[in-house]
Parts: sequence; structure tokens; C-alpha cells
Amino acid sequence: MTPDTDEPAVRPAAHDLLDPLGADGRAETIVGDEAWLAALIAAEVALSRALVATDLAPAWMLGVADALTKPGVVDLGAVAAAARGGGNPIIPLTRQLSARADELHAGAAEYLHVGATSQDIVDTAAMLVAARTLETVTADLDRVAADLAALAETHRATPQAGRTLGQHASPTSFGFVAAGWLDAVCTVIEQARDARRRLPASLAGAVGTLAVLAQVVVERRGSGDAADTLDRVVAAYSDELGLAAPDISWHTNRLPIVEVGSVLAAATGVVGTIAAQVAELSRTEIGELGEGLAEGEGGSSAMPHKRNPVASVLIVAAAKQSPGILSTLYGSLLAEDQRAIGGWHAEWQTLRQLERLALTSVAASVPLIGGLTVDTQRMLANLDLTHGLLFSERVSTLLAERIGRAHAFEVVRRASARVSAETPLSAVLDEQLAAEGFAADDRVRTSVQAAFDPASMIDHTSAGIDRVLARHAALGQSPAPHRGDPS
Amino acid sequence: MTPDTDEPAVRPAAHDLLDPLGADGRAETIVGDEAWLAALIAAEVALSRALVATDLAPAWMLGVADALTKPGVVDLGAVAAAARGGGNPIIPLTRQLSARADELHAGAAEYLHVGATSQDIVDTAAMLVAARTLETVTADLDRVAADLAALAETHRATPQAGRTLGQHASPTSFGFVAAGWLDAVCTVIEQARDARRRLPASLAGAVGTLAVLAQVVVERRGSGDAADTLDRVVAAYSDELGLAAPDISWHTNRLPIVEVGSVLAAATGVVGTIAAQVAELSRTEIGELGEGLAEGEGGSSAMPHKRNPVASVLIVAAAKQSPGILSTLYGSLLAEDQRAIGGWHAEWQTLRQLERLALTSVAASVPLIGGLTVDTQRMLANLDLTHGLLFSERVSTLLAERIGRAHAFEVVRRASARVSAETPLSAVLDEQLAAEGFAADDRVRTSVQAAFDPASMIDHTSAGIDRVLARHAALGQSPAPHRGDPS
Amino acid sequence: MTPDTDEPAVRPAAHDLLDPLGADGRAETIVGDEAWLAALIAAEVALSRALVATDLAPAWMLGVADALTKPGVVDLGAVAAAARGGGNPIIPLTRQLSARADELHAGAAEYLHVGATSQDIVDTAAMLVAARTLETVTADLDRVAADLAALAETHRATPQAGRTLGQHASPTSFGFVAAGWLDAVCTVIEQARDARRRLPASLAGAVGTLAVLAQVVVERRGSGDAADTLDRVVAAYSDELGLAAPDISWHTNRLPIVEVGSVLAAATGVVGTIAAQVAELSRTEIGELGEGLAEGEGGSSAMPHKRNPVASVLIVAAAKQSPGILSTLYGSLLAEDQRAIGGWHAEWQTLRQLERLALTSVAASVPLIGGLTVDTQRMLANLDLTHGLLFSERVSTLLAERIGRAHAFEVVRRASARVSAETPLSAVLDEQLAAEGFAADDRVRTSVQAAFDPASMIDHTSAGIDRVLARHAALGQSPAPHRGDPS
Amino acid sequence: MTPDTDEPAVRPAAHDLLDPLGADGRAETIVGDEAWLAALIAAEVALSRALVATDLAPAWMLGVADALTKPGVVDLGAVAAAARGGGNPIIPLTRQLSARADELHAGAAEYLHVGATSQDIVDTAAMLVAARTLETVTADLDRVAADLAALAETHRATPQAGRTLGQHASPTSFGFVAAGWLDAVCTVIEQARDARRRLPASLAGAVGTLAVLAQVVVERRGSGDAADTLDRVVAAYSDELGLAAPDISWHTNRLPIVEVGSVLAAATGVVGTIAAQVAELSRTEIGELGEGLAEGEGGSSAMPHKRNPVASVLIVAAAKQSPGILSTLYGSLLAEDQRAIGGWHAEWQTLRQLERLALTSVAASVPLIGGLTVDTQRMLANLDLTHGLLFSERVSTLLAERIGRAHAFEVVRRASARVSAETPLSAVLDEQLAAEGFAADDRVRTSVQAAFDPASMIDHTSAGIDRVLARHAALGQSPAPHRGDPS
Repeated sequence: MTPDTDEPAVRPAAHDLLDPLGADGRAETIVGDEAWLAALIAAEVALSRALVATDLAPAWMLGVADALTKPGVVDLGAVAAAARGGGNPIIPLTRQLSARADELHAGAAEYLHVGATSQDIVDTAAMLVAARTLETVTADLDRVAADLAALAETHRATPQAGRTLGQHASPTSFGFVAAGWLDAVCTVIEQARDARRRLPASLAGAVGTLAVLAQVVVERRGSGDAADTLDRVVAAYSDELGLAAPDISWHTNRLPIVEVGSVLAAATGVVGTIAAQVAELSRTEIGELGEGLAEGEGGSSAMPHKRNPVASVLIVAAAKQSPGILSTLYGSLLAEDQRAIGGWHAEWQTLRQLERLALTSVAASVPLIGGLTVDTQRMLANLDLTHGLLFSERVSTLLAERIGRAHAFEVVRRASARVSAETPLSAVLDEQLAAEGFAADDRVRTSVQAAFDPASMIDHTSAGIDRVLARHAALGQSPAPHRGDPS
Repeated sequence: MTPDTDEPAVRPAAHDLLDPLGADGRAETIVGDEAWLAALIAAEVALSRALVATDLAPAWMLGVADALTKPGVVDLGAVAAAARGGGNPIIPLTRQLSARADELHAGAAEYLHVGATSQDIVDTAAMLVAARTLETVTADLDRVAADLAALAETHRATPQAGRTLGQHASPTSFGFVAAGWLDAVCTVIEQARDARRRLPASLAGAVGTLAVLAQVVVERRGSGDAADTLDRVVAAYSDELGLAAPDISWHTNRLPIVEVGSVLAAATGVVGTIAAQVAELSRTEIGELGEGLAEGEGGSSAMPHKRNPVASVLIVAAAKQSPGILSTLYGSLLAEDQRAIGGWHAEWQTLRQLERLALTSVAASVPLIGGLTVDTQRMLANLDLTHGLLFSERVSTLLAERIGRAHAFEVVRRASARVSAETPLSAVLDEQLAAEGFAADDRVRTSVQAAFDPASMIDHTSAGIDRVLARHAALGQSPAPHRGDPS
Repeated sequence: MTPDTDEPAVRPAAHDLLDPLGADGRAETIVGDEAWLAALIAAEVALSRALVATDLAPAWMLGVADALTKPGVVDLGAVAAAARGGGNPIIPLTRQLSARADELHAGAAEYLHVGATSQDIVDTAAMLVAARTLETVTADLDRVAADLAALAETHRATPQAGRTLGQHASPTSFGFVAAGWLDAVCTVIEQARDARRRLPASLAGAVGTLAVLAQVVVERRGSGDAADTLDRVVAAYSDELGLAAPDISWHTNRLPIVEVGSVLAAATGVVGTIAAQVAELSRTEIGELGEGLAEGEGGSSAMPHKRNPVASVLIVAAAKQSPGILSTLYGSLLAEDQRAIGGWHAEWQTLRQLERLALTSVAASVPLIGGLTVDTQRMLANLDLTHGLLFSERVSTLLAERIGRAHAFEVVRRASARVSAETPLSAVLDEQLAAEGFAADDRVRTSVQAAFDPASMIDHTSAGIDRVLARHAALGQSPAPHRGDPS
Repeated sequence: MTPDTDEPAVRPAAHDLLDPLGADGRAETIVGDEAWLAALIAAEVALSRALVATDLAPAWMLGVADALTKPGVVDLGAVAAAARGGGNPIIPLTRQLSARADELHAGAAEYLHVGATSQDIVDTAAMLVAARTLETVTADLDRVAADLAALAETHRATPQAGRTLGQHASPTSFGFVAAGWLDAVCTVIEQARDARRRLPASLAGAVGTLAVLAQVVVERRGSGDAADTLDRVVAAYSDELGLAAPDISWHTNRLPIVEVGSVLAAATGVVGTIAAQVAELSRTEIGELGEGLAEGEGGSSAMPHKRNPVASVLIVAAAKQSPGILSTLYGSLLAEDQRAIGGWHAEWQTLRQLERLALTSVAASVPLIGGLTVDTQRMLANLDLTHGLLFSERVSTLLAERIGRAHAFEVVRRASARVSAETPLSAVLDEQLAAEGFAADDRVRTSVQAAFDPASMIDHTSAGIDRVLARHAALGQSPAPHRGDPS
């Protein structure tokens, strides 16, 4: 990544002061300016190669195409600086590529950008960057899923207080909670794979009709099989790039963009939810989960004792940013004519920021889940905090089978009001049942007492865990992210 | 303002002063309070029926269940008014249902709401309402698609100026434009069908473990096949409702909600895009399209001559509202513990408003597209507005084949600057080519002159139109929306 | 669907099944259809009265105007049902008003809607509804502020653990926390009052030029002082309605709308923040605050013991909905020409929903704060949870004065790692300082021990509390909300 | 990855490939990493200076403070890379600053960051960056306002078709339209100045109580006037930075952030609205306005004749991005405890992107408005497109004075339906009035004919223009943006 001698005018900002999760620069290698430039060039040379494949350009053009993808061929800073004139970077880019091409082989520029419009190249590059992003996010989610599957299995019988609206409600197991997280991650993995597979290339020309390319075909090949040849050019171009061939121009049909954005926001949201729950369960008063903080992580500038759940907090922060940004993409569906007046341009930085948030938050969730510390003793201790009230639903159900639901609910509600540290619900209820005439060895009294054992309760969570583990196993491994190999 | 005696405490607002598209009340019958109440009751009785189907409740409970779905069994106003106490309407609803059930058959209330938590009933009802919404939207989109297919076919050879960034760019055909719209509509139809198919029921109990139901099963049937019985209850419940059976609780996995929301926002966005383009092309200065306004539509309170594109404007308004609302749903992914502290509650009105917007805007696009007036003469006249400049890309391409791209581009750019109403581009170019030494009968001069015929140019758009028409034909008809028949 | 004879065609939905906070119908009386209809009529008759005041209409028109504001004069359902044709309800409304006016006094209709366009009436009505909303929200915030001021004063010396990123950090007092909330509430009160004061009327005519009214003036009064007369009409109209007179048309300058929306979202966000903190501090494990639940509130359908923080949760839900909705209003700034193509129409339901959320969430926060239960014992107990670590910053500071910051930080960091229930930080540190050679009566050792008394620490919070209390006192009482008295 | 010796570790991305408006790097010098680093350091040294000013630090510390603000003292790349550990860049920053300080003067580090917490420094820096941003935006808006004022004056009598919902409605003047734009710009200038004035510094310590600083004061100065000394430290710190002194901690009261965000979104929206209208009025079919394109601007990669309204399109794109981003800031109001779990961190990149969008879009609107080409001939020609229908409201009003409104509206509506290029409305109406028995020299017939002169109509727009020009004149010039002079 470090530049040599004649280095580019602008280097990617490897470290962003306001983006701690992105500080390792990994996301930037996928969505940064350098990656975008490579993707733009990849689109241009794929078109040239498609022309060769369909006999619309000479075979030597392949060599030129290869050479144009070498690093440093194009001056990124100069392209960016000149993008203002045309409203996007394609005019200065094609100017530079054409000059290089002609240097490499006289007349080569005639076989560049043939029939394409700026939006074709930018949209196709956006899809290439999205492809790398989705592949990377999927691979990271695979790792998160594997770790969650292990947690679900390991903690299948680890009782934990289930909480609703912040209040202890009924027991669950931590394995069941982890399985619930895994279920959501599996859904997002499927969505991301589907979205990756559907990413379309764009090659449609100024107003979407491919008119110029059609004319070139007719001029160079006669009109006999022009439509068929056009199809083959689009297919070759799309194949070359690993993208789907579109049926028709999508210059002002932005559904492909919102689909990518939706999946990325869902991915960020799902790891954000896990992180938010980790942060809550790490509260000083709860203490059931903890980040496996490395040396130098989680500290405070002022408080020597602090062990902050830093990764969780930053992942939550990412998840809080994506919904608003996503709404911009949905807004860009409203596109005018054959190219939108601003809606298209509004997508670029927006989609990139969504990609950054997804890449960095999902990546950060890999060590978060992999290194999660689970305090099973604390989980057990917290179960007792309400002196048995956590089991009120259960014992109410048991009683209902004998004395009817309304009566049972009322008995337990009244008993609940008398509970204290000294007289837990089990004792209060037993006394009350005695008062209602149930003998000490009556089955209902003994089964009520037995019902305060969390272990017995969470048996029933295993089936759900098993279903999700089976789902995860069936998903298999996602393909490794494509190496962005421009040469 | 309060009603007297024997009429319902609250009637649905059949007409909303601020929602002209919803004035016919159709959307309200699908997503309004009455529809929601019916869906909540449907969820409750489906659970009772599932208990009967798995021998956990007596057969006579089926009759009670049927009776509970009759209109008027529950007092909507009273339920709504009492929802504040528990934070949702389920406590007062089950109280009313239990009382009715016990009146119908003593002890029947014991077989209501067994093992369910409030969120199960609300989430399941939300999915039932979403199902009706998606089915209705899909059926309406089918009609829009059919009309667009006809427009694409009919106007296959109707030349129209292609516009980018508001400027005339190159010719297209109106059929091609309509095919582009159809392509987007087909995508949304597919997404809506998929989303409908995946809608899950919810039945998981207080903290998602189905613990109470498990205990009831054990009490009533022994522990032998408890897990299997639980599965069968969930399956019967889901089948009864026409929803998918979930693998595990989704109380704090809100991906099903964001998927529905995303599809609805996409649907609204796609018809919004078409409407926005219709409104632009209806501008006084452009006049190529027009709404087939009925008597009394499109008028103004002050200007006797006005014929406003009212439907288009209101559909655009819907599409401008959905992105921001959708972002709220994505934000609700961040759910705490086993039930979210506010995020869940934030979904209810949000999803309903998204549904309203999708239902009303898609419904309004049926007559908009069905009644669209296409002024082909005006399209033809507008092609001439730039005195041939619209063909500059084309003739530049033609020339490039002979004199190289850079030279050709420059020749045409210089010629473009000299164009006027008196000397169109065809004349200027012909003169310039003569000056450059091309003979009058040189093929390049004759083909350049021929290139100003739009008819020749749009031939190449047919393949794209055909691909989209084939896609549409393959889609087939969506199933008719389920009649919400509660009896 | 239309009802018979003598009852209103549509009644406001007093109870909304999905909006428990709005179940009392109070917000609906301010922003519902009936209120909107009254506001639209108020705008129309204010214009007639302004014409009388400037001698452009006969004095008897005042009587007609009065009569038109009586309830039941206009059929709301019929107006709403007919709004679809013109895209807004003004055409059917003015038709009904004109008919009624002519019945009351022949020729009266000539003095209705003179020079106005639909948008004038709708925008003015929106400002009237916003005025009632802001006044009501401000009055409710006044009550919240008063209760917060009392809490700040009462709990000035109630120590509480300060928490950052969910972890105990350093001590604070609950009075200081309440003062922080109060400070935010005071800011919103100021913003709401300012916004109320600036709300403009709209009276500009079809394209904003007041051309028709100008012409009427010239026809009826001659052209001598036409501009001055126009000014006086606009001033009289605005005064009559309690709104500010605009300098120029704001038909496509939507800043007044986004200002109202911003204040409402801020109000909802501020009470949402308080509610979110109440909900967190009500967690079973923390238990420092609790809602003063009334009988029947906070219960659960399945768990007899549950005491859910229902109001907090529903207020948080409101605060989670407003940001996305607000973004729609900001999007509507992008308005075309002299009336927007959809952006304007997108404001109506959006602003109304923001108003509902602000009205209901702020109203619900009045009893929430008024009835808040503060468990000072639990606050004290929680301070001990970390065995003195909460004071690490403090003792580190003390030590730093003697041994330098880096050394002190390190000493305390190492000591913190050895803390347990048996050996709190005070003991560990004392031992460590002894080991570093400090005598038992060295001032640093004694002051370190004294530093673990929270009481001493929170002394310094009083100045901040006092500043905020002074700010609150200076605010004074907001004026009582205007009674919408249409007769 | 870190570079060697004498070049900055990270250079700001002077050119962003996906942000053509930002290509000149101006916004980046205000909100980029270098600017943020300088602001963070400015906050730290302001605290040291405040300690000196209150005799809590020795005078020589002023020299150290000066030296620390020199460029290159801190390694930005290293700080950014290490920000991950603590979740924000302050720990590594203070470590570097402390090391440098101690090199400059032994013991100097003891007077750095005293009593501050990370959030104090980050929030204060955010306000400094916001201050520069608001000042710059205001200064640019001043220039836009001056140019709009000139346009309003110059084109006071330039008739233009007023358009509503895309349709010609009634005449206006271009000067009046420009005055409407100016009115909105003036409002935003006022809001931006107010917001700038209110920007608060933050100095509150770990949990907002300033406990550490209080303790330092007591240790160094005795407890006599501790509260007063604290006040003076906060005042000196805030003054030094040109920010307002806060009454109490705003660590979890994020209203200052949403106020800045709201103003920036409003600014972007207002210039976006103007740009959107310019783009529409630049449509090939309308052609009334045009960007004064420089050489190399507005071109197309494929179409030699294209003159795209590039600046307008990119400004619109910015305005489409800000609403969704703003919603994230409003969402961050919901902050937990004494420091938010993610909400705070979500603000950083969000506010920065809002600032970028405002800075670049407002800056781009300066040359857009300054160089706007106004085609008054085309405006006049377009007025005729509807053959007089544009005047239907006017003549209807005139007739109404004689024959009543309903009759007049109907006469003109019927006449409108018969209008064609050959028989304009003036002719049709004259014939119709003759048929209704009005003599040729009847005043109503002559005044109707005179009413088709746009010049006469726009007279009445002057008063509105004058009011706005007076408002603008009263605003005066905003102060020049503060030079960020770190030395």
C-alpha cells in the first residue's frame, strides 16, 4: 500500500480521526478513492475486452487493456480535481486513459468507452465496490455466525434472566439468546449473498438505448445481427466483471442501489443489536457479559479503573448512523427522465458511507463475539435478584392447570406483592397454598416448589437452538471475497 | 362528541382531510383500527384452534373460536382506551375475549392466549395486516405492469427526446421509456411476492422460549414428546394464519419488519418515479404526457384554465414520505434484551403509515397509467427543439468511424456552436464536411444526413423492450388478495 | 358509508389502537380532522374580516363570517371525500362555504377566498394548528420543568453513581442529573416560544404575487394606495389569526415548516431522553427510579409480578419516530417553481404526525416526572457496587497533586485491579501508600480515605444546579394555550 | 504504513473522487482531520491557559501552550490509529501532548487536560469546527444574498410565467422570484448567526460535575471560593475559544448539536431549492435560466453539444443528502446516563458530513447565482405558450367585479376550452362578451383586453420585493470567518 517513487498526488486517508473502527484502513481499501479508481478503470477495460470478444476491436487491444489496469497509470488526484467540470470523474478519467492507450498502441483510444456514458462507468464501478463490500461483509458474518453457534451450543444450559422492557420477566438460557442472534445473522448472510448475485453491470449509453454501440456495430459489422451482437457485448462485459447482465438500462431505476443499501443497513443493524445487548449486559449492575478487552482497550483518559465496552459502543454508533443514510438512497428512487437531476449524484457518498459502516461494524463484531466473556455465575446470581418473581409466570401456569387461570393469576399477583429477600416467592406461595387448603404433599405444592429451578425450565429452549444451528449448518461457507486484482 | 348507546365507540376515519389519495377509505379497510382488531382476534383464535388441533384443547373450542371472530364481539374503543395501562392493547383485548368466551362456553377462557405474550399477538397481527397489504399492492402493481406493457408495445416506435440532467441528450422511444418503468415494477412485484411468502407468525411467550406452552404441554400430555408437540402447535397456528412458522422467537430480531417496510418503500418509490416523470413530461412547456383527468379533477380554486397533474403530484408526495419513515423501522433493529424499550412500539404507527402510503400511491397509479394520454405529435415536435443537436452523439459516432473519435467530437462540437433555427446541425455539418473535402456523394456525408431521422435510431431499442416484455410475461398473475373474512 | 342526518359525517378517532399515548384523544382535538377543518375555516373568515377592516367588503360580512365558524356548517366527510379532485380540500370547502354564505346573505360568497389560493388557506391552517400545538407543548413542558426543578432542589445532596458507556464512572447527585434534564427542557421551552411567535400567516395568491387581490383593490378603490391597502389586508388577516405577517410569499420557502418540525422533534427528543434514562435506571438490577404506576398500569398479560415502566417506554417510542419523520420536512425544502410538485403535499401528514408525537409524549412526561419514585437507598447501595472504584478518578487526582499525574494514575490503576468485595479500593490504596512510604497520618493518606465519602464530592454540583434553577426561574410561565373557540 | 521524517503522517484528501463540489479542498481545510486535530489541541491548550488565568497553573505554561499549537507537534496518523482503544482520539492525543509538554518544560504535563474528560475535548472541538463552518457558510450566504438582491432589483419588471404543479398558472416577475429566494437566504443567515453565537464550550469532567477540577481548586487554593473559581475557569476557557460558557454539562443534552445540524441542513436546503429551480428553468424546453458555465464545465463524455447545469445538479445532490443525515443527529438526543452508548459517537462523522454538504453546496451557489444567465426574451416568449390562459385568473377576477364570481369563473372556464394558437383567450373572451351583450367600448371589455399585458400585472410585485430588499439591507454584513490560526 505504500507508494513508491512517483507517487500519486493523493493518498487515501488511512486513518480517520473520527472513525476509530476504520482506523485499520481495511474498509478504505475496499471503498476508498483508490478502490473506486480501480473499479472505474476495470469497467472501462472490461468494455474494451468485450469489444475484442465480439470482434468489434482488434485482439491487440487486450494487451492495452491489461496495461491500463496497472497501478499508477492514472493520476487519481488530477481526475478528482477535474471532476467538477462534468459533474463526475469520467471525462478526465477517459481523457487520461485515452492518452495512455494511444501511447501504448496508436489508435487504441478508439476502442475505449465505446458506446458508454459516464453513468454506465460510475454505476458499474459502484457495483464492483458493492460486490467486494458484500463479499467481505458476508465472510465476516460467517465468522460471527460460527462463534455464535458455538456460544449457543456451549451455553445451551446456562440459565439467564429474560428481560422485557428492562425488567426481569422469565428465565431463558444464554445459549437461546445467542441462537436468536445467530438466526438474525443467518438471515442477513442469505440476503447479502442474494444481493451480491443480483448486482448488475450497466452499459446503456447516453439515454439508455445503447444507440451509439448499435451504430458502431452496424458500421463495423452490418446490420444483420446487430441486436444479437449488442447482447453479446453486454454479456461479455458483465461476465468479465462478475456482474449480472441487465435486461434494460437502470439509469433511472435505482432499485439495485436500494437493495444493496438495505442489506448493508440490515447487516449493520443486526451486529448493532448484538452489540447493544452486550453493552447493556455489561452494565456495572448486570455484569453478565464483557468484551474481551485487549491491553490498551476500554480505558479512560480520567478514570484509572474504567473497562469500557468500546467495541460494542462503536458498533452501536455505526448502527445508529445507517438508517438515516439509507433513507437518502430510497429518496433517490425518484429520478427524473433518463438521468436524475441530483438524485444519482446523491447516491455516491451515501452508499460509500453505508458500506464503510457495514464493513467496519461487522468486522469489529468478529473479535467482539469471538472474545466475549460470559459470566455464568453472575447470570445465576442475577436470576435470584427478584426472589423468585422471575418464575411468577411459570408457577401461575402450573396453578392454572389446577385452579383456573384467573384465580391462579390473582393468587400469584397477591403473593408477588409480599415477596422480600427474607421471604421469596416460593415461601410465600407455599404458605398461601397451604392456607387455601392444599396438603403439604399435594402435587401442586410440590410441583410449584420444583418450578423455581431454572434448569428445569430451560430444557424447552433446546429445540429452538437446534433449529437455528441446523439452519446455520445448512448455510455453508460463503465464497472468499474476490481479490481486487486489477492486472 | 361521544356516541350514544349501541354503536361502536369509534368508527374508522373513512375520509382523512389531509390524505386525498386515501379518501376512498380502501387503505383504511386494510390497515385501519378495525382491520387491526380483526387481525389481533384472528391471532388469538388461531392459537386456540392450534391447541384443538394438537389435542391441548377440547373440540368445542372451535365453535367458540368461530364465534369470537364475529364482528362486534369486542368493543374496539374500549380496548384502545385501555391500551395505555399495559402499553399495548392486548391486556384489555384478552380480558374482553375471555369474558365473551366464558359466556359462550364455561371454561373456554382457559384455552385462549395460552402461552402467548402480548408481543406474539401484536406481531402476528402486524404480519396479517402486512400480508393483506402486500397482496393488494401486488395485485395493483400487476395492473400497472399490464398497462405499461401495452404502452411499451404500442409506443415501440414513438420517438421521444431522451433527457439527461434536464437537457435534451439523444433520442429514445416512449415505448422504451415505458419498458424501463415496467422493468422496475416487475422487480418490485417479485420482491413483494417473496416478502409475502416469508412473513412469519410469532408464538414464543414472554421471553421467547415458549416456556409456558411447554409447561402446559407437559402438564396435559406428559413430557414424552413435548418438543414435538410444541412444534406442531406453532406449525398449526402459522398454517391457520397463512404465515410462515418461525425457527425461533423474533421478538428482538426485527428483520421481518424491515423487509416488509423496504418492499413497501420500494413500491412507493417506483410508482413515485413514474409519477414524477409524468408530472415533468406534463409541464406546460413539454406537454408530452398528460393525466386522463376525469371531470372535476385537476382544477384550481382560482385559475379557471388549470389542468393539474393531481394524481402524479399526490403519488410523488407519498414517495417523498416513505424514506424517512422507513428509517425509523431500520432504527428499531436496535432492540434491547427480550423485548425492546420503545423500539418495538415505534414500529406500529410507522409500519402502518408506510402501508398506507404504498396502498394509496400504488392504487392511484393504476388509473394514472391506465388513463395516460400520450401526445406523440408533441414528442415529435420537441425532438426538433434543438435543431438537430439531439443527434450530435450519433453523427459524432458515425464520423468517428471515418476520421477518428477525437477529431469527430471536435468537428461536431464546433458545428454545434453554430446551430440556429435557420441552420440546423444537419446543414452546418454538411457544409463543414464539404469544407473538409468530402464529396457530396461521399458515404459519410450521406449517412450523416440520414442519421437525423429518429426512426432509424430507435430500431435498436426493440431488443430491450422485448426482454422486459418477456420478463413481464414470465411473471404471471399474482394470487388475488385474501379476503379478510373473519367469520 | 355516509351517515345519516344530524350527526357529523366523520368523527375524530378518539382512540387509536396503535397509539396508547394518544388514547385520551387530547392530541386529536388539536391536530385531528375537526381541528384542521376549524383552522381552514378560520383562515377563510379571517380573510373576509380583513376585507371588511379595509373597506373592501361590507360590514354585514362580519356577521356572515361569525356564522360560518359555527360547528356543523361544513360537512367534513364530504369535503375530505372530494379533496382528491383538486389535490387538496380547499375547492370543496370553499364551495360549501360559499353556498352557506349566500344562504346567510345574498352575495356574501363574493367576499370569501378573495385573492387567496388553496395553498394560502392550507398553510395558514397548518400554522394555526402548529400554534395550538406549540402552546400546548410549551404549557406541558412548563409543568415538567417545575417538577424537575423540585427534584433538582430536593435531591441536591442525594448521591448517585455517574455512569458513562454503561459503566460506573464517578459519583454525581440525582439533583444534578435532574438539573441537567431541566436545562434541556428550558432550552426547548425557549425554542418553542420563539417558534410560536414567528409562525407566519400565508396570503399570496396563485403564484405568490397577490395579483388578484391587487386587482380587486384597484377595481374597488382605485390604484392610488393599492400597495398600502394590500399591506393592510395582509396585516389585518394575520392579526386576526394571531400569526405573523409575511414579507413575501413562502409558498416554496418552507423554512417556517422545518422550524416548527425541528422544535417539535427537539421537544420529543428531550422528554424521550429523560424517559430513556428513567427506563434504564428502573432496570431490575439498578432500581434507582420507578414510574409512579397507577392501578392497572405497567401490568403484563402473562407475568403477574410485572411492573413495567410503560410511560417511559411509550415516550421513548415517540422519540424514536420523530427523527425520520422530520427528515421528510427537510426534504420538502426542495420545492419547484411557485408550488411544489409533491413536496408541499408531503408535509401535511408528516407535520401532523410530528405534532401528535410531541403532544402525546410531552403530555405523558408530565405525570411521569410528577410521579417519579426515587429510591435514594438504592442509589446509595449502588455506589458501593464497585467497592470504591467509583472514586478512582477522585483519589487519582488527589494523589497527583502530591506524586504527579502519571505516577498517581498508575498507582490507582494497579490498585484497581486488586479490588474485591473483601478489600475495597480504600483498603488496597491505603496499603499501597503505606508500602510507598507514606506515614499513616500523612495528609495524603488521610485525605485519600476521606475522599471515599460521596457526600463531600457532590458539594461542587450545587453551583450548576443553582445556575439551572435560576435559568428556569427567569423563564417565567408560558401563556396559556389559546382556546380554539370557533364561535 | 507510517511515513518517514518530515512529511505529515496523513495528508487530507484534497480531492475526493466522489465529491466534485469538494474538489477544491476548501471544506476539508475546515472540517478535515487536520482541522479537527487543531481544534482538539486548541481545546486542550485553552484549558491550560484558563488555569493560568485563574492562578491554577504557572505563567510559564502559556509558553508551553503556544508551542503545542504549532503544526506538526502531534502525529495525526498515530493519534487516529490509536483512537480505537479508548473509542475516541483523546487518550493518544493527551499522551502525545503530555510528552511534548514535558519536553518543553519539565512538569508541564501536570497542567494539561486538568479536570477534563474526553467528551469535553471532543465536544469543544466539534463546536470550534462548527463555528468555522457556520462563519464560512454565513459569509458565502452573504454573497449569495447580495447577488440575489441585485437580481431582484434588476428584474423587478421582467415578466415570467408563474408555475404551480408544473403548469403555467399566472404571471410573476423574475425579480419577485429572486426576492423570494433572497427572503429564505436572509432567514438562514439569521439562524446561522444565532447558532454561531450560542455554540457552547464543554468543560464538565467525567460525569459532568467538574469534580476533579473542583478538587484541584480546593487542593491548590483552599475551599473558600471554590465554586467561584470553577466558574472563572470555565469562563476563561470558553472566552479563549470564542464559545459560550455552559450553565451545566451538556454531555447527554445534545440540543447544541441538533441546532447546528438543523441550521446547516436548512442552509443546504435553501441553496438546493434555488439550484433545483435553476435546473428546472434551464430545461431545454424552458430555457429561461442558465448556468454561466466556464470553459470545460457542463460538458458530456459522449454528447458534443451538451451544456449541463452541473453546479445546480451537484447542489441539489447535496440538499438531497442532508435530511437523512440530520435525522441521525436528532436520534442522538436519546442519550443514556452521563455518556451515551453510541449516540455520541454517531454524531461525529454525521455532523462532519452535514458540514461538508453545507460548505460545498453554499460555496458552489456563490458562482451559480453570481454567473446566472437570465434569458428575458425566452421568459417573454414562454408567457405566450398558453395563448393567454396564463391570464385567466386575472380576467376572471375583473369580470367577477361586474358579473359575479361564479358566473365569471364559468365564462372564463368555457372560453379557456376554446383557446388555440389562432384564437387566443383575449379574442375568444372578447367575442363571448360581445355575445353576452357588452358593447365594444364597455369598460369591462376594454379592461379585459388590457389585462393581457403582463407589464401591468407585475406592478404589484414591487412592494414584496422592496420589503425583502429592506430586510436584506438591515441584515448587514456578517463578520469575517475566523482564521483558524493555531500559532
